[in-house]
Amino acid sequence: MSEKYKVGILGATGTVGQRFISLLEDHPQLVVHKLGASSRSSGKPYYQSVRWKMTVPIPEGVKNLVVEECVPEAFKDCDVVFSGLDSSVAGQIEKAFTEADLAVFSNAKNYRQDPQVPLVVPTANPEHLDFIPNQKQIRNLNKGFLVTNANCSVTGLAVVLRALENAFGPISQVIITTLQAISGAGYPGCSALDLIDNVVPFIGDEEDKIELEPLKILGGVHSDGQQFQHLSHMTVSASVNRVPVVDGHTEAVSIKFASGNKPTPQQIIDALDQYRTECQDLGCFSAPEKAIVVSLDEDRPQPRLDRMNGKGNAVTVGRIRECPIFDVKFTLLVHNTILGAAGSSILNAEIAIAKGYLQKQ
Amino acid sequence: MSEKYKVGILGATGTVGQRFISLLEDHPQLVVHKLGASSRSSGKPYYQSVRWKMTVPIPEGVKNLVVEECVPEAFKDCDVVFSGLDSSVAGQIEKAFTEADLAVFSNAKNYRQDPQVPLVVPTANPEHLDFIPNQKQIRNLNKGFLVTNANCSVTGLAVVLRALENAFGPISQVIITTLQAISGAGYPGCSALDLIDNVVPFIGDEEDKIELEPLKILGGVHSDGQQFQHLSHMTVSASVNRVPVVDGHTEAVSIKFASGNKPTPQQIIDALDQYRTECQDLGCFSAPEKAIVVSLDEDRPQPRLDRMNGKGNAVTVGRIRECPIFDVKFTLLVHNTILGAAGSSILNAEIAIAKGYLQKQ
Amino acid sequence: MSEKYKVGILGATGTVGQRFISLLEDHPQLVVHKLGASSRSSGKPYYQSVRWKMTVPIPEGVKNLVVEECVPEAFKDCDVVFSGLDSSVAGQIEKAFTEADLAVFSNAKNYRQDPQVPLVVPTANPEHLDFIPNQKQIRNLNKGFLVTNANCSVTGLAVVLRALENAFGPISQVIITTLQAISGAGYPGCSALDLIDNVVPFIGDEEDKIELEPLKILGGVHSDGQQFQHLSHMTVSASVNRVPVVDGHTEAVSIKFASGNKPTPQQIIDALDQYRTECQDLGCFSAPEKAIVVSLDEDRPQPRLDRMNGKGNAVTVGRIRECPIFDVKFTLLVHNTILGAAGSSILNAEIAIAKGYLQKQ
Amino acid sequence: MSEKYKVGILGATGTVGQRFISLLEDHPQLVVHKLGASSRSSGKPYYQSVRWKMTVPIPEGVKNLVVEECVPEAFKDCDVVFSGLDSSVAGQIEKAFTEADLAVFSNAKNYRQDPQVPLVVPTANPEHLDFIPNQKQIRNLNKGFLVTNANCSVTGLAVVLRALENAFGPISQVIITTLQAISGAGYPGCSALDLIDNVVPFIGDEEDKIELEPLKILGGVHSDGQQFQHLSHMTVSASVNRVPVVDGHTEAVSIKFASGNKPTPQQIIDALDQYRTECQDLGCFSAPEKAIVVSLDEDRPQPRLDRMNGKGNAVTVGRIRECPIFDVKFTLLVHNTILGAAGSSILNAEIAIAKGYLQKQ
Repeated sequence: MSEKYKVGILGATGTVGQRFISLLEDHPQLVVHKLGASSRSSGKPYYQSVRWKMTVPIPEGVKNLVVEECVPEAFKDCDVVFSGLDSSVAGQIEKAFTEADLAVFSNAKNYRQDPQVPLVVPTANPEHLDFIPNQKQIRNLNKGFLVTNANCSVTGLAVVLRALENAFGPISQVIITTLQAISGAGYPGCSALDLIDNVVPFIGDEEDKIELEPLKILGGVHSDGQQFQHLSHMTVSASVNRVPVVDGHTEAVSIKFASGNKPTPQQIIDALDQYRTECQDLGCFSAPEKAIVVSLDEDRPQPRLDRMNGKGNAVTVGRIRECPIFDVKFTLLVHNTILGAAGSSILNAEIAIAKGYLQKQ
Repeated sequence: MSEKYKVGILGATGTVGQRFISLLEDHPQLVVHKLGASSRSSGKPYYQSVRWKMTVPIPEGVKNLVVEECVPEAFKDCDVVFSGLDSSVAGQIEKAFTEADLAVFSNAKNYRQDPQVPLVVPTANPEHLDFIPNQKQIRNLNKGFLVTNANCSVTGLAVVLRALENAFGPISQVIITTLQAISGAGYPGCSALDLIDNVVPFIGDEEDKIELEPLKILGGVHSDGQQFQHLSHMTVSASVNRVPVVDGHTEAVSIKFASGNKPTPQQIIDALDQYRTECQDLGCFSAPEKAIVVSLDEDRPQPRLDRMNGKGNAVTVGRIRECPIFDVKFTLLVHNTILGAAGSSILNAEIAIAKGYLQKQ
Repeated sequence: MSEKYKVGILGATGTVGQRFISLLEDHPQLVVHKLGASSRSSGKPYYQSVRWKMTVPIPEGVKNLVVEECVPEAFKDCDVVFSGLDSSVAGQIEKAFTEADLAVFSNAKNYRQDPQVPLVVPTANPEHLDFIPNQKQIRNLNKGFLVTNANCSVTGLAVVLRALENAFGPISQVIITTLQAISGAGYPGCSALDLIDNVVPFIGDEEDKIELEPLKILGGVHSDGQQFQHLSHMTVSASVNRVPVVDGHTEAVSIKFASGNKPTPQQIIDALDQYRTECQDLGCFSAPEKAIVVSLDEDRPQPRLDRMNGKGNAVTVGRIRECPIFDVKFTLLVHNTILGAAGSSILNAEIAIAKGYLQKQ
Repeated sequence: MSEKYKVGILGATGTVGQRFISLLEDHPQLVVHKLGASSRSSGKPYYQSVRWKMTVPIPEGVKNLVVEECVPEAFKDCDVVFSGLDSSVAGQIEKAFTEADLAVFSNAKNYRQDPQVPLVVPTANPEHLDFIPNQKQIRNLNKGFLVTNANCSVTGLAVVLRALENAFGPISQVIITTLQAISGAGYPGCSALDLIDNVVPFIGDEEDKIELEPLKILGGVHSDGQQFQHLSHMTVSASVNRVPVVDGHTEAVSIKFASGNKPTPQQIIDALDQYRTECQDLGCFSAPEKAIVVSLDEDRPQPRLDRMNGKGNAVTVGRIRECPIFDVKFTLLVHNTILGAAGSSILNAEIAIAKGYLQKQ
């Protein structure tokens, strides 16, 4: 069998970085090769520079890798670079890496709205990866490119909206309230004082992202082939909350279709159940058997019980019922640090490999 | 000073009953006189029959009251009866008590939709108590009558909707997602396995109540004076969730006014801040200084920090902002076992006293 | 390869029963063949009679098994029976099953103190399984026998005490305080009102078990070969607490050796790290690589991060340090529903198979 | 009535500072006059510089006080200064304040082991305040002095040990395991990731304090009148844990008396129940009616239900029973930010006033 793709991970000591490392243990195509972190951590073996918070041990092959500074020279033999960098530094570093002709899959928000950068949820809009050659040409790159994945809450929503638009046509209105897990805030992240006997009805900038990102993800490419174009037929209104859950965002959603035709709950159930995406057809290693798991139990999905469906890469939808105001309402659940973060980047890379967009150094 | 009104409490050993007893300690007009519970508990002193779960001790004057069975004869010297009964038994018992000419303020759901029974949130529709004489006449009662208060989630919503309709006219659409505390489910109530590292997106019948009760509360009396009439201009769509919070329901709400005129967030803030209700004007003992407390902090209201505003009888509203789909969205918080349950009954009784509807035996 | 042993599970719809079913999925030697539950559940396919609360789906091969009543006739073709029965019914049912010549591994407390029944923690006293032939002879059984495993808190303690007595001789005094997870109480089990912003310093009968069971586990067989004999040199004093943790009991332990020789913390670390048990030597499928995982981090073990060490069958020990009063103190962590319950039964059965004590029907 | 004592609060924006301010609202003898914080906060009105996290609003009289830097000149008209400073700065600042002849009651750890500084738990060793004149003389001060209160966990323990030594003579051995609330760590303090579905068996330096401070608190003054002297007859061994509780430390304690006489549980109950301290006799405003509340319920004390006993200044003790190794074991509960912090300082000041040790400027 051919050699694995060498992976560099930026922000390797953070929560997203740790998740990347865990998910890549025993991956058949990808192997962790280089780790990058701030200069405070670099120069030391990984196990000494990280405060490891995953529930499985640090993989043996990673434990003793010496942490590098996040400069392109240190990663030039990497075939693919995953970025779990904080947005305060991701902008400059990812730019430098891309310009150094490295292939970067980023979890940071900085370039999500760049019209020449694909914003890809692997089980919603994998076809946006087909823009990679366009980006290379525009930016005059050979092997390098930049792909981003979406905000964690948006990820779950986008998958379901895409399945529904596929089946029933344009959706005009989406009102969503989230109950978000704490792991997305990193470590130490949220204060325990805010989340014992409490919820917090606010997360900075989160509502803006939820209202904006789906429009790009579900949108298309401009006819000039030079940029992505936002959907114009959909408006999203979001209210976010932080709740005392470790992993798994729960989202209560009401939607209205543009057509005026109102599918029945059973039709919605069938459409979601039958939804199938390119990443399954391509046989990607991390692709969930079903991109959407439909639960018929009256009190599901629940984060602790359902977040690991599809090894964390499926979205679970339940409580599908008529909305007295819009057409339908339901509750969805997405694992915010797997499909909602590192898992999307990895699955995006797997799709890019399958489609031939990723070349070895 | 004149003697206090003698209070009977039905369901005295349950969570709502315990809350009634706590709230009535040191009340200037009301004194706990009789306690009723199931035959399993009756015949014993209260402190022996209750599994007390309040954070203050059992009041001295109540500790040794002998628990009675819930039959009218045992309560005939009570001037007012508060019912914290479970709905499985409330129907028959409350009927018997009312027919025995006792004045009953009930927290149970059984008669909330009875067209001749006021469904009253004291800081939303206290004027519905003016129907008491009509009810007495229709039912041929002398001193007795039956008043109910609303579902805990509805209570907070109704207060805010009323303030907004007062200021800006009819509201046509309300989409609401709740994050509800566990105390409303009683003891033992919710399983800890459901609420550690988890939320549950379901509470039986709760969404139906939230979609229906506001229409009666915000509605009026039919011109024949014989029954209440639901609002016809408003539709409510609810999605409920149980979260790991002891007390305090958080509700994310988006609303649309019927008029097409869209008030600004600042106008909403001003209207809520200036909202004043009859119970303050009547000088009721438990009336909160402000029925609605507006918070301008970006991350409030929070249940642990804000539920005791107005001693648990105020509703706190924050995050008031434009809704990209409807007119405005905001988050409200209501103490589910004070204003949302026992506190409403008590404040309703205080208003009834002030208005002369409650007569001593 | 030879056929798998057919497994019957009693109490299959309960929390321990669900854990048995999850752990046996894909087991190389054992296959779930019959499921037993109360008559309320029996007669229906398993997926209809259970309220499944594991974080993985019901295994396909089990989903449609029809649940039986817990009577020996229904299980007579089972080679091994695991009991996750409640103690209120386990006494009679397990007696009937054993007398019907079935091999029973029980998680219930009923027969733990029976002098002719082995009480076995697989990584502490597997040699007690060698009493099985004695029990068969005494009770005049052919294939049938009864083996119990220990209380969940005791399990973790016994493993560590055994390792320390092996290395440093008899321990005379053990003072232990537990912080116990909620899953051991079943579903619905603990009330959420008791475990949000709270701990409960009491679990019925638990302290008695912790003070008594280790003495049998670490004890031996009487010279007459007819019964087990408790240790006489050790006294245990326990204080138990329930804490808001889903899985994983944390135990703070101080111990004093009988000899008066005080090993250093480093000697303790080395002894625990090198501790090896029969189940590893026998190559049992579920045997953890290390029975005891020693953590040198100052703030470990932690239940959420360490409970799955050794796939839930290892005990993690940390904070090993001198005790100013006794000789040494440390904190241990055991997964209460894997090694502390179903995992022990399964590993005991694997050892019994390896040693030839389990015969096929 | 005479004028109130003017109070300065150092560290006023922190968690302890906020608690001081809340507890002093409506105090009959003390009025908040000056607030001090780091230079980052100073110069602004209090409500602008604080992230208020109490469950009651900022008192009206404090809201607009301009925050000062923590320099003695700014507080020279204060009759008493309470310090809620972080230990990283408390050493220098409290020294400067004392030398400037100000009366300081400190919650910081810096001077607790200074042999000339009283370490006082108001309901355990109020007589140590009688050392104030000695300290003044030694340090050549006129009105100024420095008194510290104890670590939060120690506070609860010391009260109970004092009551038991009073009744039954010297205690030789104490083994204690704590389950500590998060509020003591300040805001943001503990990470929510550490305390959802988790406990942490470690708090830096805490075990050392618990093993050392009681020896000074329960000790006496050297015969030369120049210094405090630690107890020599007692050894304490502590194991600490952080648990998901907002307020209230739970402590499981086993003790052995030096005499060899073992009191019965009932004698222990009676002794604790009858324990009375100087602060009650002096009629101090914040003195709890009982310094120790004994609970006979099998599952109490519990932090959420019992922490506010005695308005947070009582220690609740339950589960009093024989210890199979030592003489007796029990569980105690102390409100860590009231009696365990700000409440102790305030009650110490009230005692000092009653005894004439505090002079107005």
